[in-house]
This record gives sequence, C-alpha cells and structure tokens, in this order.
Amino acid sequence: MSRVRVHNLSVSLDGFATGEGQSLDAPFGHAGLRLPAWFFATRSFRQMQGEAGGSTGVDDAVAGAWGTDIGAEIMGRNKFGPQRGPWEDHEWNGWWGPNPPFHTPVFVLTHHPRPSVEMEGGTTFHFIDATPQEALRQASEAAAGLDVRIGGGPTTVRQFLAEDLVDHLHVVVVPIVLGRGERLWGGLEGLEGRFDVESVTTPSGVTHVTFTRP
Amino acid sequence: MSRVRVHNLSVSLDGFATGEGQSLDAPFGHAGLRLPAWFFATRSFRQMQGEAGGSTGVDDAVAGAWGTDIGAEIMGRNKFGPQRGPWEDHEWNGWWGPNPPFHTPVFVLTHHPRPSVEMEGGTTFHFIDATPQEALRQASEAAAGLDVRIGGGPTTVRQFLAEDLVDHLHVVVVPIVLGRGERLWGGLEGLEGRFDVESVTTPSGVTHVTFTRP
Repeated sequence: MSRVRVHNLSVSLDGFATGEGQSLDAPFGHAGLRLPAWFFATRSFRQMQGEAGGSTGVDDAVAGAWGTDIGAEIMGRNKFGPQRGPWEDHEWNGWWGPNPPFHTPVFVLTHHPRPSVEMEGGTTFHFIDATPQEALRQASEAAAGLDVRIGGGPTTVRQFLAEDLVDHLHVVVVPIVLGRGERLWGGLEGLEGRFDVESVTTPSGVTHVTFTRP
Repeated sequence: MSRVRVHNLSVSLDGFATGEGQSLDAPFGHAGLRLPAWFFATRSFRQMQGEAGGSTGVDDAVAGAWGTDIGAEIMGRNKFGPQRGPWEDHEWNGWWGPNPPFHTPVFVLTHHPRPSVEMEGGTTFHFIDATPQEALRQASEAAAGLDVRIGGGPTTVRQFLAEDLVDHLHVVVVPIVLGRGERLWGGLEGLEGRFDVESVTTPSGVTHVTFTRP
C-alpha cells in the first residue's frame, strides 16, 4: 500500500515553517537558515549537494529517510522557484540546478500550467493546476506503487493535511521564536487525533516529531 | 544572586498555552487537561494535592524543580480565580483551597487591589496593581534573597519575558495542535538569543525546553 509522506519540515516553537519576506536570495525570509540548519549539517544533505562530510547521527538517519521508496513528489510553486503569475522565462528551470535531488517525477502545483521539463538524473517537472486529490492521483500513478512525497512548502503541506491525505508527517521543532512568517498549523486543530505521534530530541537541539497514520 | 523563574509551562505545537473558553469548570478552556497531563501524572504533582503515587522519572524531577529556592510567586489574576472586574466576594479565596501549594507570599496582579489574605501553610496572597518591574521589586523583597517564580498564566509570563525580566524559562512542548486559545510566544521574536536553550523529550512524549540566561 503506497503512502503519502512529508519529511524534514522544520518549524519554530511558535509554529512558523518559513519566515517573512521570502525572495530568491532568502528562501526562508527573515528566518535565514536557522530552520534547516540541523539538516544542512547532515551527511544526507551534503550528499544531495554532491559534497563530502556531514554528521552521521540520528539527525542524519532521519533526514535520509526522505528518499526511501519515493516514486514521485508534489511541491508548491514556491519550492520550484520565486516566480509569480504567468511564466515569463521557460529557460530558468528552478532553484534545484540541472540535476535536481529528486530523481523522480515532480508535480509542481501552479495556476499556470506549462510544458513538462525533463532534467538530468531522472527528475521531470510536471506543472499542473489541480486540487490536492487530483494532484495526488496523478502523482500516485507516476509513482507506480511507490510512495508520494509532499515536498512543501508549508502551504502545500497544510492543504494536504487539511484534506487528510497524509499518512506520515515528519516535523522538526527548532527551538527558536520566529515571530512572523508562514504558520504550519493553521486550521489543523486536533491533528494529533488522526495519528500515532512520537517525539525525540537529538543532540543538535531539535525535536523530531513523527505523525504516523495507525 | 536571586533569579526570576518560570516552570512547567505547557504549550502546544502551535504555541497555545491555554485553550479558548476558560471558565471555573474549564481552566484550560477547550484544551481540557491535555496540556498539563504530563504534569498531573508525576509524583510531584500528586504530592502537591496530598495524594500518593505518580511517576518518578525525568518528568517528575523537572516538575519538582518548581519549588526549590523559591521565596515568592507572582501570578496573573486568572491563575487566582475566574473573577473579572471589581471583587464581589472576598470570602472566596481562589482556586487553590485553604492550604495552597505555594507556601510563600504570592503577588496577584490585578487592577482591583484588595486586602491581603493569609492562608494556611505559609501562603499569603497580596493583590497589587503594578508594572512587571514594580511587582518584581515587591516580590524580590518578600523573597528575602530566594528566587521569584512567575507562576503564569501565559499573558503574565509573556509580559515578564517581553521586559527581559526572566532568568530561567521552562516550557513543555506537548505534541498536540490546539488551534485556538492564548498564544505564549507573541511579541517574543528572537527570544532564544538571550538564553542558553536545551531540549529533551521524555517517554511521556513531551519535550522540555529550558531557556537559561547565560
């Protein structure tokens, strides 16, 4: 049975999954790199970047679960790139470089569909204007029996959670108070009732909270 | 050097320290007892209630640090009782029974001062209309060299944090999404920068986050 999974979604103590003022130079806005710092320190992240080194403890093990048995990803347009409105440049193919780390079909949710783009390394970006249910139907078909990852950002994850389409949610609570930005938890009152919940703090100081559908 | 301390303040993943709709029968509003459930399970809490039993692990050890070296408490009026406006009944002396668990002077912040009330067991309630600084001055004097606890609720704690008057803040993140209620973290952006921060999850599933002034 294939599952719908969210991984490595960092959130502040006050519930913000990204800061205010996102831009090309500041993908997390005023939060800087404080939310994903634990992730950037891991060997799993370094390998995605084609770099050596990185930590190999529990943070790394949990971070690395990101890719296992994933057959397709769904992401919001903001995760692909900072453009808004109609696409003006079909040559710029996202923040992820010529060989994106996904290596599967990736469905980018946008109100402005455009032709699919095949990248190096097995990543193909498909641009679809679809409800969460319809996007998931297409992604599940493309995943051919493997799992589908909801890749973010927080708005996209929240939409899929609100529709009860997520089977596994891995959130990382970073002990900082961001004060402003995009809230992850809005509209999700009582979310924990639908899941088994496990928490563990690692020596980096973050707390991995895993919601798994029973 | 006496310190100003906050202990055992439970908060949801989405940052609420109490639910919506507080009343005499529902001191945490719609949150019910989900926020303090970890605390109620401890031996420290049971002892405060004059009961036997309770857990004796890390939750209990951390909970029990509440009383050590405390010479006075400051609390918001809501923690004393549910009344609003002028006091209409001087006979009802709060939620805490004839022998409250504080056993020190307790300064209740209210816009409606009334005569002090001496309870059994060493607790005396003083009712003062004062700024955080002035309340702390009075409580520190009463504490006679011991520490002052800011007992809550969240609004009171937030006021003292905003004025940078707190030396030790112990928050307990409970992995539930409350959706509504009173937010702890409002106006405290960057709070972590003033403290050393430590996190640890215990087997009950909550995460103790301790902010200590370096």
